[in-house]
Amino acid sequence: MKTSRIALSSMMLGFGTVASAASPSISRLMPRPAEVVAGSGALSLENGLRAASAGPADARLERALARFAARFARQTGISRPATEGASPASLTVRVAKASPGLPSIDMDESYELTVAPDGAALTAPETWGALRGLETLLDLVEPGPGGLSLPAVTVKDRPRFRWRGLMIDSGRHFMPVEVLKRNLDGMAAVKLDVLHWHLTEDQGFRVESRRFPKLHQKGSDGLFYTQEQVKEIIAYAADRGIRVVPEFDMPGHTTSWFVGHPELATESRAYTIERKWGVMQPAMDPTREEVYRLLDGFIGEMAALFPDPVLHIGGDEVEGHAWDQSPAVAVFKKAKGLATNADLQAYFNKRLAQIVTRHGKTLMGWDEILHEDLPKGAIIHSWRGPESLAKAARLGFRGVLSNGFYIDLIQPASEHYSVEPLEKDAANLSPEEGARILGGEATMWSEFVNAETIDSRVWPRTAAIAERLWSPRDVRDVADMYARLERASRRLEWLALEHRTGYRRMLERLAGPAASDADVEALRALADLVEPVKRYERGGTREYTSLTPLNRLVDAARPESDDARELSVLTERLLADPARRNGREAIRSRLEAWQAGSSRALPVIARSPLLEDAAPLPAEVAALAGAGLEALAFLEQGEPAPPTWFTQRASVLDKPHKPIHGLEVAFRPAVKRLMEAARGQ
Amino acid sequence: MKTSRIALSSMMLGFGTVASAASPSISRLMPRPAEVVAGSGALSLENGLRAASAGPADARLERALARFAARFARQTGISRPATEGASPASLTVRVAKASPGLPSIDMDESYELTVAPDGAALTAPETWGALRGLETLLDLVEPGPGGLSLPAVTVKDRPRFRWRGLMIDSGRHFMPVEVLKRNLDGMAAVKLDVLHWHLTEDQGFRVESRRFPKLHQKGSDGLFYTQEQVKEIIAYAADRGIRVVPEFDMPGHTTSWFVGHPELATESRAYTIERKWGVMQPAMDPTREEVYRLLDGFIGEMAALFPDPVLHIGGDEVEGHAWDQSPAVAVFKKAKGLATNADLQAYFNKRLAQIVTRHGKTLMGWDEILHEDLPKGAIIHSWRGPESLAKAARLGFRGVLSNGFYIDLIQPASEHYSVEPLEKDAANLSPEEGARILGGEATMWSEFVNAETIDSRVWPRTAAIAERLWSPRDVRDVADMYARLERASRRLEWLALEHRTGYRRMLERLAGPAASDADVEALRALADLVEPVKRYERGGTREYTSLTPLNRLVDAARPESDDARELSVLTERLLADPARRNGREAIRSRLEAWQAGSSRALPVIARSPLLEDAAPLPAEVAALAGAGLEALAFLEQGEPAPPTWFTQRASVLDKPHKPIHGLEVAFRPAVKRLMEAARGQ
Repeated sequence: MKTSRIALSSMMLGFGTVASAASPSISRLMPRPAEVVAGSGALSLENGLRAASAGPADARLERALARFAARFARQTGISRPATEGASPASLTVRVAKASPGLPSIDMDESYELTVAPDGAALTAPETWGALRGLETLLDLVEPGPGGLSLPAVTVKDRPRFRWRGLMIDSGRHFMPVEVLKRNLDGMAAVKLDVLHWHLTEDQGFRVESRRFPKLHQKGSDGLFYTQEQVKEIIAYAADRGIRVVPEFDMPGHTTSWFVGHPELATESRAYTIERKWGVMQPAMDPTREEVYRLLDGFIGEMAALFPDPVLHIGGDEVEGHAWDQSPAVAVFKKAKGLATNADLQAYFNKRLAQIVTRHGKTLMGWDEILHEDLPKGAIIHSWRGPESLAKAARLGFRGVLSNGFYIDLIQPASEHYSVEPLEKDAANLSPEEGARILGGEATMWSEFVNAETIDSRVWPRTAAIAERLWSPRDVRDVADMYARLERASRRLEWLALEHRTGYRRMLERLAGPAASDADVEALRALADLVEPVKRYERGGTREYTSLTPLNRLVDAARPESDDARELSVLTERLLADPARRNGREAIRSRLEAWQAGSSRALPVIARSPLLEDAAPLPAEVAALAGAGLEALAFLEQGEPAPPTWFTQRASVLDKPHKPIHGLEVAFRPAVKRLMEAARGQ
Repeated sequence: MKTSRIALSSMMLGFGTVASAASPSISRLMPRPAEVVAGSGALSLENGLRAASAGPADARLERALARFAARFARQTGISRPATEGASPASLTVRVAKASPGLPSIDMDESYELTVAPDGAALTAPETWGALRGLETLLDLVEPGPGGLSLPAVTVKDRPRFRWRGLMIDSGRHFMPVEVLKRNLDGMAAVKLDVLHWHLTEDQGFRVESRRFPKLHQKGSDGLFYTQEQVKEIIAYAADRGIRVVPEFDMPGHTTSWFVGHPELATESRAYTIERKWGVMQPAMDPTREEVYRLLDGFIGEMAALFPDPVLHIGGDEVEGHAWDQSPAVAVFKKAKGLATNADLQAYFNKRLAQIVTRHGKTLMGWDEILHEDLPKGAIIHSWRGPESLAKAARLGFRGVLSNGFYIDLIQPASEHYSVEPLEKDAANLSPEEGARILGGEATMWSEFVNAETIDSRVWPRTAAIAERLWSPRDVRDVADMYARLERASRRLEWLALEHRTGYRRMLERLAGPAASDADVEALRALADLVEPVKRYERGGTREYTSLTPLNRLVDAARPESDDARELSVLTERLLADPARRNGREAIRSRLEAWQAGSSRALPVIARSPLLEDAAPLPAEVAALAGAGLEALAFLEQGEPAPPTWFTQRASVLDKPHKPIHGLEVAFRPAVKRLMEAARGQ
């Protein structure tokens, strides 16, 4: 096989050009493998593909191959030879050592994949690597001369970090088993390996406890996972090389526990399931032995149910209001010499660590648990930032980064993609300390997502985070990432994920029965230009509780507007051109289309009461597009725009204060750039 | 409740206008109920909807209510009260007499549904009617003043025909259980009540026979339904008020039987599963007693497996080649005094009828079985036309119409919608004879559909056929039907059907990994303007077998182009206006956009070998749009176009001869109308 080596350094800039002539799929793999060498020719798939294991008996691999066959057939539309008696293409999978046990933090996920015109071979030291390689192979399918084919290629691949997680918050909004399963499929497709399952919150206690059934019976509105379902999820994840790390958040975020067991709470009263969002005051009482007795029983039960060695105890956002108001706590603190509430929480954590350790588990918790008394085996989960991660590593703790990976904050993929776990404070760690940084986790907090919308908040942006954690450190070209993210997003739809199909369906619901297809398209064109407000702004836009239906335009809108991003790219290119010509017409045609098109959504909005909040949006879009077009005209003339013009138009650049629809026009920053350039030239 | 009665006759023309002011959903119900009286006000759904049975214990209804709750939550995004402690809206379901048995040809499907601002009530004599009413209720959900709501309304509804079927051909392409289930859900949503399950064909024997296991083991490539799966489908259908009528096609269309049992065939030789399409020569041997012995055993087994009283024995397209070539058959015919092969088939059918009757079943078969010797209880299934149906009715047979409902022929919904079972020959039947016409069936023959594409061929067009068979005879306004069909199509997507989402996914596959989102959109814009060739033309466009993958542009393209239909409507409106002005600009802007846009698909086509067949399409679209624009200009001038112009342009009106891509530009007829009008004015 004639091969042409593509060095990794050249992949950053020239790769797309070089390889796309030969194979568009090789240049679009996501996550980018550690090493790729393109070959020549292709393996035709027109007669299907038969994958078979040539290694030792491996039941997990056999199940994976059965799933692979079904997914291959679905993704290609090819399930058997197109010609009677023809042989399908062959994929030989050879695993040196079968991995019958559960996926672990020490699993070997490396693999080598070779595709040649006469067949494909996948080898891996352990089953886990074979699972990863099968995903790469599905990512390589592309139209070839004789129909669908695989390009000749050699891939040598291994992950950069061993902890590549997605946290799903089943506490605030319950996520049914099928939602978890399809997201596990998505995780496997982008080579993530940890499902961090946030199971208890003020708003819901989501796991069946047979020892303390009042916990889930009274704390969940009936929306909880049975232990059988938990086992089902763990097995499903394990078959995809994904660990399941449960979180039971304590001593705060625990209102739902107290509905059935008020004796755990510092303040003795009757509790109901919390419906509001925010940091709540109730907290467990760290002073009473009966609390530790129940926790010992409960954690013992959960330690047996969840086989992974790591157990996450949360520990975040305990403000201590309840403690401050309790005379008994004050007496206790004094007696134990605990000066602050942080010291009190450290005491609680120390007791909890003893319980967790006794049940054979490693304790993990959010930054707040970091304290010198914490046993050194513990894992610090950083939501606050890289400083605490670096600090933890220096103190001898292992750490996982989630700061920067908060996908609930509706930030663009590029922002998450730019986060590097070994940068900033972590850049100065010794090699030994640096090795304690295990990886990172995207966190899908669920105040504003439910079973219907979670897919569109997780995907495709989490694929960019997955690449950050899997691929070599120097894979970080943002434009290239976006080109590949679009492709990854499409590929994920061959799984049951609804991040793309759900968009149109939700818009149809909002538009109502009177809407024609053109009406829905007009609404979609508007929705394509807006984004939900970012970070923690949405909670301030209207009254939200855990009972509020999430079926409005803000829920349908995508976290990131492709249209707006493209306009920003075009704008930067234009402004980088001294002649102000590069891409000008592309900007103009977009702005003109948005200006003209925005009013088309007005009749749809007028006819549907569900959309009434969104009524100001078309005018806002038109005003912004108009201002952008004026700025463009000034740039074309090459004369600075009159200051009066800028002053008159500047108001369009102000974001509406707390829009009740929770949306913002996504191309405002690009228009601002154009206007400022027009003024300043 | 203040009500305004809307007479059925006024529904045809004025209904849309009258009711849409108050409620867009009432005017868009599909199938249109027998009687609808709009009320005033609405029932708010913001706190959810709780449906409860108030009638006698009814396990089937309880299961239906559980499914209803899940579908309601999915369709609305509302699963519980939005306000703590608030009560959900209430739907009381009262069935006079529970229907624990299976759905039957005599079931009562009528129901009455009342929605008032303070609650909804559904009453029905039998459970079947309640099932139908729940579907109507889901069709009524619409955006209202305070969020989603149900308009106040009274519906009194019942079906016009008792046999409203969909035939699915699992023989030619196997359809997995989940495909059948989602299509059963779709059937229930549009109130169809018979799944006619075509289970055996030359290309596949799809049902497990425990008595004669070689039938499915050797005749199916391993693609068959186990008896457990058959029971699962029957139960699933029964819960939705749908009968399952199995078809075992004999004595032709039986090659797959002969792979395991060559002794059944007239010609004694080894057989393999047929891969080609068409009418095949092999046929069962009607002269040998061992054939009837096996059939007796097999039908006995199937009669026990399928509880419905009707068993379909096919009987179509026996050309008798095999019989003509058999000396033994010649001897037999002479001995029995059977002059023709039709007589011989009648003899076979008579013997078969005895077997079917002995096993307690009513025989059903295609037109060809109609013969004076046939027992009068038999049901004639007409694929040939209304004449044979009327003839059968006169002879005392009951009949079901499928002629005109062949959805595999890729005809527009309007064509199927215009078919009336009681027209033409049937119009002159006596009331007693007319009552023998039980209804009709859409037939989804599967030469060119598989599990991936079947949804897009069945839906939404079958909803128009379902309305023909359910709604009053005078519900037949085509424009109104199309307005409602778009809505019905969307609603069906809340089920797991993929008739809309699959389109984009297949185009993405064809476009390949190099395609940007804009590329896929350009391809979609092109695909929106083409349709698969009609009737039996596709088989002539290239070499097809049952093994050919169905993953090309022709498979992605929809049976009916909305764009082309809209252009036809606009064209007729323009030509009806003496001033040639009405809607002219709408036509112009469409044709201009298509002319300009068609070339955008060229780079996508050039990059993907899977699309190379489609390369001529953009030029064809541009030429047709251009000719249409020229015709429009002549019409605007009001002078006849020069004959030379017409002659020069006439070639664009010729359809390409057997295009290998199997597609045709769908707006050709509208351009032809414009050109001819320009010439003739």
